[in-house]
Amino acid sequence: MSDWQSAMAEIQRGAEEILLEDELIAKLKEGKPLKIKAGFDPTAPDLHLGHTVLINKLRTFQQLGHEVIFLIGDFTGMIGDPTGKNVTRKPLTKEDVLANAETYKEQVFKILDPAKTTIRFNSEWMEKLGAAGMIKLASNQTVARMLERDDFKKRYAGGQPIAIHEFLYPLVQGWDSVALKADVELGGTDQRFNLLMGRELQKSEGQRQQTVLMMPLLEGLDGVQKMSKSLGNYIGITDAPNDMFGKVMSISDDLMWRYYDLLSFTPKNEIEAIKQKVEAGLNPRDTKIDLAKELITRFHSEQDAEAAHQDFILRFQKKAIPDEMPEFEFALPSEGLMIANVLKDASLVSSTSEAMRMIKQGAVKIDGEKVVDSKLVLKEPTEAAYQVGKRKFARIKLK
Amino acid sequence: MSDWQSAMAEIQRGAEEILLEDELIAKLKEGKPLKIKAGFDPTAPDLHLGHTVLINKLRTFQQLGHEVIFLIGDFTGMIGDPTGKNVTRKPLTKEDVLANAETYKEQVFKILDPAKTTIRFNSEWMEKLGAAGMIKLASNQTVARMLERDDFKKRYAGGQPIAIHEFLYPLVQGWDSVALKADVELGGTDQRFNLLMGRELQKSEGQRQQTVLMMPLLEGLDGVQKMSKSLGNYIGITDAPNDMFGKVMSISDDLMWRYYDLLSFTPKNEIEAIKQKVEAGLNPRDTKIDLAKELITRFHSEQDAEAAHQDFILRFQKKAIPDEMPEFEFALPSEGLMIANVLKDASLVSSTSEAMRMIKQGAVKIDGEKVVDSKLVLKEPTEAAYQVGKRKFARIKLK
Repeated sequence: MSDWQSAMAEIQRGAEEILLEDELIAKLKEGKPLKIKAGFDPTAPDLHLGHTVLINKLRTFQQLGHEVIFLIGDFTGMIGDPTGKNVTRKPLTKEDVLANAETYKEQVFKILDPAKTTIRFNSEWMEKLGAAGMIKLASNQTVARMLERDDFKKRYAGGQPIAIHEFLYPLVQGWDSVALKADVELGGTDQRFNLLMGRELQKSEGQRQQTVLMMPLLEGLDGVQKMSKSLGNYIGITDAPNDMFGKVMSISDDLMWRYYDLLSFTPKNEIEAIKQKVEAGLNPRDTKIDLAKELITRFHSEQDAEAAHQDFILRFQKKAIPDEMPEFEFALPSEGLMIANVLKDASLVSSTSEAMRMIKQGAVKIDGEKVVDSKLVLKEPTEAAYQVGKRKFARIKLK
Repeated sequence: MSDWQSAMAEIQRGAEEILLEDELIAKLKEGKPLKIKAGFDPTAPDLHLGHTVLINKLRTFQQLGHEVIFLIGDFTGMIGDPTGKNVTRKPLTKEDVLANAETYKEQVFKILDPAKTTIRFNSEWMEKLGAAGMIKLASNQTVARMLERDDFKKRYAGGQPIAIHEFLYPLVQGWDSVALKADVELGGTDQRFNLLMGRELQKSEGQRQQTVLMMPLLEGLDGVQKMSKSLGNYIGITDAPNDMFGKVMSISDDLMWRYYDLLSFTPKNEIEAIKQKVEAGLNPRDTKIDLAKELITRFHSEQDAEAAHQDFILRFQKKAIPDEMPEFEFALPSEGLMIANVLKDASLVSSTSEAMRMIKQGAVKIDGEKVVDSKLVLKEPTEAAYQVGKRKFARIKLK
């Protein structure tokens, strides 16, 4: 496989659509660093894994030697919601923008190489453009063309208002590509229209058109809806290691493979090998643990990943009592039964002295509650799950 | 009639629509000078009488003591046709704009009082607005609302492209009213949508809304189509006095009354009096002459008006021979007929000595050709129109 072929294989991994592939191949064949653009909203610097799908792809381009331009759309951010209706989109100040950029850096440089990343702000060229430039920009597109965009079409047909400035935003995004002379722009599939606008404006400015690479929208923990804060189905990249671990462990096996594709840096062929092992009997839970640890290592550290794993095991053991375990029934004399004897009779320990020792170590639980008194006498008729250490369980009935 | 009532009567003369009349009355009652705005295209400073309908109304406001703001829309003029398709709308430079403004002044100050006229350029505030301001401005209106404008509606329905910047121009015009805090805006009836935009934007900026006064579009010389250069049915205000005179004389009597209403400064009651005279038998041609002279005096001088009138008479007498006139047939003896006798026999003069005198004064014509020889002998059998002075005609056949 030649250089550009292996590069294309990595670029294509997980990508939903590339417009146009042949064009991108031609660019790669030139063997020069390409300008890879991706735009980010300056108002929401709290990233979740859904956002990282795109950033991971930027990383791929970086590793292939290309220049990543992390574009912060501060120009529209500083406008806010010009209708004033959306109070959550208040205009940002320059200071807000710079502070948010710092927050972005903290987060994205856990994935991207700072040395190969250029951070730009589109206010740089948009403020110079002026009202006249904005009018000229607007002359590039027709109303009919804009109304072809899915959401506009639906709203127009449904009699819902579309404010005119909404027609200008795709043009601003497109103009950013002109200003940057972008060779490739990455975006979500929901950005298709706006990404293509960059191509159109570059063409009318006599530039070579950017290739558009669309990444899919990552499903949230539910495996159905798009990962988003408002739906609560997300893993934030600043989530605590334990939370991250627990959330990854909660996903379905199918979603795990999707996450492997889009979030793991494990090479594609290795993922295939793991899949085969799971088919051959490996517990997919273990594969999920590996993914959780990879992500925690990325966003926190390897130690944090290990600790989260251990903590998960403990919490899992505390709460998750197996459905099936050996069952025993003991007659309860009036003076009661010593716990050490009960544990021994149920074969959870080999001797009463081992029982005493385990209790002292905090390794004995009844219905998930740690037993603290090694000389505990059981007097009430009960049925409960008894646990010693991590793996020994028995259901014991005293009557 | 109170002050505001007589003011309203003058303002209403010839106006097609006032939105809203009550509002304007309230403003007039305040007794303070109002800001009267009218916008002009900086690319076409060659005015014709059609343009002056509006300027005349500005003059009315001036005479009522209000401040006229002659707004030159240089901002969009300097953009030109941003699509580049319309080669006749090349972008103007600042120098072009200033030169055109001078040409405007030369023309409009023949109607307006320079001391009561403020000339403004909208680049003053539009350049400060910036791309961000343009976006905020655009957020004031919806796509659906814009598509209500007649021409947009038709084009959209007909599948003809509407470039997005076309949606911005009405907003720019409206924003001018905000920047100027206009109390009244004058415009043609074709400007209805854009004029109302000023009201909407002023409202959303918390300003008192301007009253919109729409003047009709003046019919051209044909009396049917709107006066325009491209149709050739116009009287330019820099037209030579003779051309102006001839063009006014060429219009129909109906159109003359329309022109009186919209172009003459003759008070309305005097026009009524003239109408009655015409009904009582006054030749409307004389009324037309008065109008022509008024307009030439306005745009050139009183002497020019007089000279044009005289010149018209001469040209009229030379060329325009009445269709109907007394007819005579005289037998032509072999020695011929003395012209003096012919004129006397046809009752064009009372004596041959009068005939000789009239010929010497240059007041005798045959088929429009001045007779120079008072002793001319007519020998050829002919049929021709004989004219003495301005009004005496006879068709005479010599055989």
